[in-house]
Amino acid sequence: MYSEKVMDHFSNPRNVGEIENASGVGTVGNAKCGDIMRMYLDIDDSGVIKDCKFKTFGCGAAVATSSMATELVMGKTVEEALKITNKAVMEALDGLPPAKIHCSLLAEEAIHSALWDYAEKN
Amino acid sequence: MYSEKVMDHFSNPRNVGEIENASGVGTVGNAKCGDIMRMYLDIDDSGVIKDCKFKTFGCGAAVATSSMATELVMGKTVEEALKITNKAVMEALDGLPPAKIHCSLLAEEAIHSALWDYAEKN
Ligand code: FES
Repeated sequence: MYSEKVMDHFSNPRNVGEIENASGVGTVGNAKCGDIMRMYLDIDDSGVIKDCKFKTFGCGAAVATSSMATELVMGKTVEEALKITNKAVMEALDGLPPAKIHCSLLAEEAIHSALWDYAEKN
Repeated sequence: MYSEKVMDHFSNPRNVGEIENASGVGTVGNAKCGDIMRMYLDIDDSGVIKDCKFKTFGCGAAVATSSMATELVMGKTVEEALKITNKAVMEALDGLPPAKIHCSLLAEEAIHSALWDYAEKN
């Protein structure tokens, strides 16, 4: 049912945690299942994402997509990170079952929300 | 949003894993969110549950209720375990938000399914 990459990122999620004094923080909720996700970004003066961490109460699919998403945004510029879609994250994970696609949206929305928070502060 | 007990069982879930040659195994799916849960029971000759382990791809609420449910069934007889409802598990956790009640059903259904599997084999 789940790809090896999904199981890997679910069992060993990357970049779980918080960043103190983060450049941007985004918290989003999933209307469909009631879950929440928080994403922290640390962005340097040249607009490059130096660190990214997340916390979620969401399911395994939400954990796996967020973990992969943090790896994809790391080292990217704000402009590049804005272009990362949940489709790209799912492809990097070799797909997700249709019933779990809404879970993958949490990661995309949380990153956008954190980037928005950063933009408002700068 | 979540009680201290829910956060405790979510962060440090009890009895996660598998039991080889379990007396009963139950796998159930959640129609609402597409998540799955598997429960393993080890039951001795007198019908007492000696061990109980679970695995899930479900959200934090599913993890917390399953963790609490495994603690509640441990040491109980099959008859007693059949009477444990998701309501009892939620009460033991000091409640869950309404949007997450469907998640708590996974644990109850998985235990019932594992007990049913045991009954069929014996
Ligand atoms: S949202 Fe699927 S088990 Fe909670």
